[in-house]
Amino acid sequence: MNIHDLDTPAILIDIETLEGNLSRMASYCRTNNLSLRPHTKTHKIPQIAHLQIQYGSTGITVAKLGEAEVMADAGITDILIVYPLWGEKKWARLAELAKRVRISVAMDSLAVAAGISRAAKAAGVEVGVRLEFDTGFRRCGLTADEESTSVAQQIMKLPNLRWEGISVYPGHIMGNESIREQDIARENVQLDCLYARLDAAGIPYPVVSGGNTPAAFESHRFHGITEIRPGTYVFNDRNTVDAESARYSDCAATALVTVVSTSVPGRAIVDSGSKTLAADMLLSGKQKHFGYIQNHPELILDGLSEEHGHLLTPADSQVRVGDRLRIVPNHVCPCINLHDQVFVVSGERVVDQWKVAARGKVA
Amino acid sequence: MNIHDLDTPAILIDIETLEGNLSRMASYCRTNNLSLRPHTKTHKIPQIAHLQIQYGSTGITVAKLGEAEVMADAGITDILIVYPLWGEKKWARLAELAKRVRISVAMDSLAVAAGISRAAKAAGVEVGVRLEFDTGFRRCGLTADEESTSVAQQIMKLPNLRWEGISVYPGHIMGNESIREQDIARENVQLDCLYARLDAAGIPYPVVSGGNTPAAFESHRFHGITEIRPGTYVFNDRNTVDAESARYSDCAATALVTVVSTSVPGRAIVDSGSKTLAADMLLSGKQKHFGYIQNHPELILDGLSEEHGHLLTPADSQVRVGDRLRIVPNHVCPCINLHDQVFVVSGERVVDQWKVAARGKVA
Repeated sequence: MNIHDLDTPAILIDIETLEGNLSRMASYCRTNNLSLRPHTKTHKIPQIAHLQIQYGSTGITVAKLGEAEVMADAGITDILIVYPLWGEKKWARLAELAKRVRISVAMDSLAVAAGISRAAKAAGVEVGVRLEFDTGFRRCGLTADEESTSVAQQIMKLPNLRWEGISVYPGHIMGNESIREQDIARENVQLDCLYARLDAAGIPYPVVSGGNTPAAFESHRFHGITEIRPGTYVFNDRNTVDAESARYSDCAATALVTVVSTSVPGRAIVDSGSKTLAADMLLSGKQKHFGYIQNHPELILDGLSEEHGHLLTPADSQVRVGDRLRIVPNHVCPCINLHDQVFVVSGERVVDQWKVAARGKVA
Repeated sequence: MNIHDLDTPAILIDIETLEGNLSRMASYCRTNNLSLRPHTKTHKIPQIAHLQIQYGSTGITVAKLGEAEVMADAGITDILIVYPLWGEKKWARLAELAKRVRISVAMDSLAVAAGISRAAKAAGVEVGVRLEFDTGFRRCGLTADEESTSVAQQIMKLPNLRWEGISVYPGHIMGNESIREQDIARENVQLDCLYARLDAAGIPYPVVSGGNTPAAFESHRFHGITEIRPGTYVFNDRNTVDAESARYSDCAATALVTVVSTSVPGRAIVDSGSKTLAADMLLSGKQKHFGYIQNHPELILDGLSEEHGHLLTPADSQVRVGDRLRIVPNHVCPCINLHDQVFVVSGERVVDQWKVAARGKVA
């Protein structure tokens, strides 16, 4: 089948670009002696998780227990849930999962660790734990102080938990190269303080897990990081291009769309809005637009209704109803999450169709 | 089952509030002699479509052919696709659908109408058509001029089409009452010009379809409108409250969420981010926040990661890990579209579970 035979909108994954991205990150991690545990929230597709393992990942990361269950069902055997799971129902499901795969959880409270410990003990299983520290993103994570080292010591004593170390998320490091320069220096001060505090309290941290996509290829410059968890690098998107950590030619996921209206002067409407592309603005806030039109930099995706993409077209535009375009989304993770399947393409050939199997696993 | 037995995040639909919203809109339309053809993109749930019919709707509106197919499978027999369908595949599916339900399409080009006509003729069916005019939203829709009346005349001559009239979408009318006052006056000038142009060309328009949720209850003030297509009114959301066309007590859909982290001072993290609530900003741009926390106006939903909702908490906040909250989303349509099912509640009792059956029908 050719992409011209696909109805639109459809998400296309360019297999060569995808494999190039996987290979580049795997090679970087090998060279720099970093474990790679990619965050599969970006794709939610077991076939890609398996490719990531084949390219040398230690295991995978997920955000949701439901995602972990789907990935375990698909044969992935080493999973980190980097999310503070709460509640008897989730703890029981987690313990069930630990019967069949190696599973770890990152959390930032004794309460969450204690709940997991109880459920793991009742099921006779072991769950890995990593304590999350905040290094400046201000989302989850403890402050490195006496109280938090005491929490770590209490968690280490809980039964049926496997103490693996610590976790950070540098989500605030997302600017371009020159911005990152200062950010990395600041992050290292935070990390050094954290290690000093842990060392003083005699808390071991064999794993120091960090890393997002924008700064992934500079992970060796962060002090003491042993593992990174980038997600977006598999596909890249307008955000990673904006952060100067990828080029548009590295963007593996595009939405194939059709122009459906050119009635309003200066505009063209494509059959893809926020329910196809996701409404995310660029993280940097630099430009307002909602995606990048491949091979047509003169067309500006100025707005999104739910099912309409609003293109601004120049006066001499040749865009006509029925034309097909390919759009690189601003943020590929929520975009993929809107689709039941993606089409794998090599050039213009459709070579496979993958189910977004972990989509909708909100709990 | 009680809502306390549900795992989170979960979308709750308060059945009494939903029925109140359905009843109020139906009664308004009856009183004002308007046909009600609600846009089911908001819910994508056949059970709600059937409730809307029971409350006196003429039929339903959808944006996507795939949504129309799901609704037809569920027994809805009168469907308007208010979207310019393009391509042989879609036209053939449309003609198939026209064999079993009454179907109409709104479009703004001869090319789309001609494609539909050809497929309808080949299948021996009839498809209703409405020509879309732009009254100021600048999305789809022709300008009322000689060229567009000529398009209308050509469409009226195409075989196997049933000329029903015209369609407009006042998507630009979304401000609060005082803003709407001027908007309605301006809209009426547009409508009057449109009717004058059509009358002069001898083009009948038995149906004049319009109407969005923010201005729905003022539809009788728009000149000549015979039918309205509000969507959001079934649930309402922070946008409709912001536009002063509903109160928070009219919001039928909430996300039930759990606080999972309070480690960062001044913050609490809930287990619902942009993959649960959708990342839409308020249409009015008035406030930045991403949802309204029921019964806790002191908590500000300041930001969304994909799976984390970032709450700002006051210094004396009592919010703790494990607490449950209910969030009214900014824009309920893309929020529901992220979920495979919703839980129907009466007070704290879970009385039913509905599948979001038309979710993911992007094409």
